[in-house]
Amino acid sequence: MDELTAAVRAFAEERNWEQFHTPKNLAMALAGEVGELLAELQWLTPEQSSAVMADPDLGPRVRAEIGDVMIYLARLADVLGIDLVEASLEKLTEAGSRYTVEAARSSASKITGALPRTVE
Amino acid sequence: MDELTAAVRAFAEERNWEQFHTPKNLAMALAGEVGELLAELQWLTPEQSSAVMADPDLGPRVRAEIGDVMIYLARLADVLGIDLVEASLEKLTEAGSRYTVEAARSSASKITGALPRTVE
Amino acid sequence: MDELTAAVRAFAEERNWEQFHTPKNLAMALAGEVGELLAELQWLTPEQSSAVMADPDLGPRVRAEIGDVMIYLARLADVLGIDLVEASLEKLTEAGSRYTVEAARSSASKITGALPRTVE
Amino acid sequence: MDELTAAVRAFAEERNWEQFHTPKNLAMALAGEVGELLAELQWLTPEQSSAVMADPDLGPRVRAEIGDVMIYLARLADVLGIDLVEASLEKLTEAGSRYTVEAARSSASKITGALPRTVE
Repeated sequence: MDELTAAVRAFAEERNWEQFHTPKNLAMALAGEVGELLAELQWLTPEQSSAVMADPDLGPRVRAEIGDVMIYLARLADVLGIDLVEASLEKLTEAGSRYTVEAARSSASKITGALPRTVE
Repeated sequence: MDELTAAVRAFAEERNWEQFHTPKNLAMALAGEVGELLAELQWLTPEQSSAVMADPDLGPRVRAEIGDVMIYLARLADVLGIDLVEASLEKLTEAGSRYTVEAARSSASKITGALPRTVE
Repeated sequence: MDELTAAVRAFAEERNWEQFHTPKNLAMALAGEVGELLAELQWLTPEQSSAVMADPDLGPRVRAEIGDVMIYLARLADVLGIDLVEASLEKLTEAGSRYTVEAARSSASKITGALPRTVE
Repeated sequence: MDELTAAVRAFAEERNWEQFHTPKNLAMALAGEVGELLAELQWLTPEQSSAVMADPDLGPRVRAEIGDVMIYLARLADVLGIDLVEASLEKLTEAGSRYTVEAARSSASKITGALPRTVE
C-alpha cells in the first residue's frame, strides 16, 4: 500500500500534475472512475455480476477500472494526509458498534434499515 | 491491506450480509459513499479543499468518508478476487506508457487532452 | 420545465448562492444527489427496485432523491445555457443511428456490447 | 418534457430493452453518465468551468453528457411513474422552508452548514 502511494505520487510529480491534484479535483476524478466501473456492471443481473471475472472481455475491464479507482483513492488520501487502512479500520470499528452482530443477524434489513417491506 | 480485507470480510460474514454483497450491489454502495465524499467538498474552492483537514468539523468528516469508500472498495475487490494494489500498479504502468513524462510535462493539458483552449 | 428552471434560479438568487453555482460545483452536487439515490436502491434486487414506489417508506424517499437530482441538473443546464430537452433529443437521435432497431433487437447484448458471454 | 419521456420510452421499446430498464439498472446508468460529465470538468478551475461552453472541443462534449444524463433521468422517472418536474418543485418548496432566504443570506455557509471555518 505504501508502495502504491509512493508510485502514484512519483507518477504525478514527474508529470508536473501536482497543480491539478487538489482534493476537490481528485474526488471528482475518483467519482468519474467509479462511474466507469458502474457502466461495466449496470446491465448485468446480480448473478451475472458475481461471475464477471470469468468473462474474457469484461473481467479484465472490471479489473482495470478497480485499479483506476484505487489509484485515485490512494492519491486523494496521500494529498489529504490520511492513512487509508487506518481510516478504514477506525470506520469499521465505529460501524461495528452501530450494527451489532446480533441486531444485524436478526434482520437482514438492518443493512440499510430500508429494504422495502412490501416487496420482501 | 490484507488485514483490512480480512476485517471487512469478517464484518460482513458475522452479520450474514454476504447475500447482499454482489459486485453489482457493492459497486453501487461504493458510488454512494463517493457521493457523500463529493458532498463534503462540493462548495469549497480548490484552495479550501486543500486545507480541509485542518478544519475541526470537515476534516474528520472527510476522513470518515474516505474510510467508507476504502471499506467498500476493499470488499468489492475481495468478492471479485482482485488484489487491489497489484491491479493499481498494473494500471499505473500502463498509464505510464500512455502519458510519458516528456509529453506530459510539455503540456499540462495532456492530463485530459481537454483543458479548454479558450479559457487557459 | 421552464417553470422549474426559473424556480431553481430564483431560489439560488434569493439566497445569494450564484457565487457557489459554477458548473464544476453543480456537477459535484448532482453526483452527490445521484449517490443518495443509489444508496436507496443498492441492496434491492432488480425486482424489488421495480416495486419500490409501492413501499410506504422507500417510495417517497426515492421520489425526493429524484427531485433533488432534477433540481441540480436543471440548475447546471441553466448556468451552462443548455436547453435540457433539446440536448437530450439531439443525443437520442444520435444514439438512434448508432444502435439501430434491427441490430439492437437481434442481440440484447448490443446494449453495451458487453453482457458477459460466459454468464448469459 | 413529455415529448422527451415518450421518445426515450419508444427508443427502449423498439430495441426490446425494457428488460434491462429496472430502476436499479437505470440508476447505475445515470450515475455512469454523471461520472462522464465529472470527467469533463474535473481538472478545470471553477472559473474555467464557467467558460466551458465557449470551448469548441469541450462545449459540445459537456452538452452531450448533459443530454445523456437527462435521457437516463427521464427514463428512470418514467419507469418509476414519477413526474420529474412535479417531484422537483415539491422538493424545492420543502428546501425553501428549510433554508429561508433570511437565514441563507445572513451566512453563505448555510448552503451546507459546512464551509470550513478555518479556511474561509
